[in-house]
Amino acid sequence: MIPEDHPRYAALVVRERLADAMRAGIVAPEGLIAQGRGEAFDYLLGERTTASAARAEIDAAAMLLAARRPVISVNGNTAALSAHQLADLQEASGALVEVNLFHRTEERMQRITALLEEHGVDVLAGAPERLIPLSHDRALCLPEGIGAADLVLVPLEDGDRCAALRQMGKAVIAVDLNPLSRTAQTATLPVIDEVRRAVPAIAAACRTMTPAEARERACGVDGKRYLREALAAIAARLEEMGHALE
Amino acid sequence: MIPEDHPRYAALVVRERLADAMRAGIVAPEGLIAQGRGEAFDYLLGERTTASAARAEIDAAAMLLAARRPVISVNGNTAALSAHQLADLQEASGALVEVNLFHRTEERMQRITALLEEHGVDVLAGAPERLIPLSHDRALCLPEGIGAADLVLVPLEDGDRCAALRQMGKAVIAVDLNPLSRTAQTATLPVIDEVRRAVPAIAAACRTMTPAEARERACGVDGKRYLREALAAIAARLEEMGHALE
Repeated sequence: MIPEDHPRYAALVVRERLADAMRAGIVAPEGLIAQGRGEAFDYLLGERTTASAARAEIDAAAMLLAARRPVISVNGNTAALSAHQLADLQEASGALVEVNLFHRTEERMQRITALLEEHGVDVLAGAPERLIPLSHDRALCLPEGIGAADLVLVPLEDGDRCAALRQMGKAVIAVDLNPLSRTAQTATLPVIDEVRRAVPAIAAACRTMTPAEARERACGVDGKRYLREALAAIAARLEEMGHALE
Repeated sequence: MIPEDHPRYAALVVRERLADAMRAGIVAPEGLIAQGRGEAFDYLLGERTTASAARAEIDAAAMLLAARRPVISVNGNTAALSAHQLADLQEASGALVEVNLFHRTEERMQRITALLEEHGVDVLAGAPERLIPLSHDRALCLPEGIGAADLVLVPLEDGDRCAALRQMGKAVIAVDLNPLSRTAQTATLPVIDEVRRAVPAIAAACRTMTPAEARERACGVDGKRYLREALAAIAARLEEMGHALE
């Protein structure tokens, strides 16, 4: 039980939710460590959507609407944190949803699919093939899903796989709090924001954009600029917190 | 199995070790999230002991040697990462070692004690009492351990408890990679370094210091300075990495 008088009660409740999701076989133990890395960067960003990230989220909506065959790749952490929000994003964007895991087991695939379906997500089914240029089971994806996608949205992804998807000629939107991660550095569009803030913002932007507006905005996306802006936001906050120590 | 061709193979192996420790009941699920937060800050510090942290480690040795009754408070993460190093630090510093957990269960207390003893740590036993000004079982500690200590070394600690120990009038040395954490901000001496680098460095410094040198150095410790230096190190690295993006 988390003591309610703890100064970081809200953050502790999210942690407990992920720990529970791990016990339920949804989140891999390594997924908890990844959550912690995200928390650290979120703290440095002020635990809020920066103005820069808000623009990136509108870009993400534009890219999803302008894509021929957009696919949202969902892992255990994303499902545990955002299942209901993904249902809404799927409806707003028309994207396919594929479950794709770094620590892949048949059992986790099934549990995550069931959780997403409970929350109204239409999850792509099929026989996976080794289509991604990576070793072991990390090469697996659905031929009619990520295999055929021109754009993949990968919230909370592994940097190695993000690079592999780019090598396959696909555009990649990553949602990642760490502007220095290989995922963020490799993605076509890095959204440097917390997934539970980013997913609804992208869904909302999808609903306010015409197809023509989406196509135009999608052409002008500058991913590197978002990385620079996120680093600048962190540097400014560090300086501010340093002054508070004097 | 971790693919050996992964660019972050070494970091993944440490993560797997902690995930295994969790499955063995040593590390709490929330401890994995804490590890991730530490990893993020370690990355920002360059995954090395800064010159500033190396000085803090000599200060920590001085404080341990100069204390009347120093106690090392060990939790699951510290035991999983540093059990053998703690045995060496105990020998070099003469400090008592007490197992003290945020997510306290009798089973975890016993498993951690057994792990430490396997690695040669002499673990303090006794009947815990509610002596720390915190709610629930987090108040528990040993009267003849942390209860009677004038100095507590808390590697990888909860910020709330660090503040409570300070309120009790005890000096606290924290080992924490996050210079912005409440632990680091509240400790008498924050050692902003990774626990597996910090513990052997403190032990080595204990062995090269006379009691008189220790007493003199312990009087001049300036904790806030280490926080400022760590923030400056992170800001410098962010700037450097930002330039690499241009």
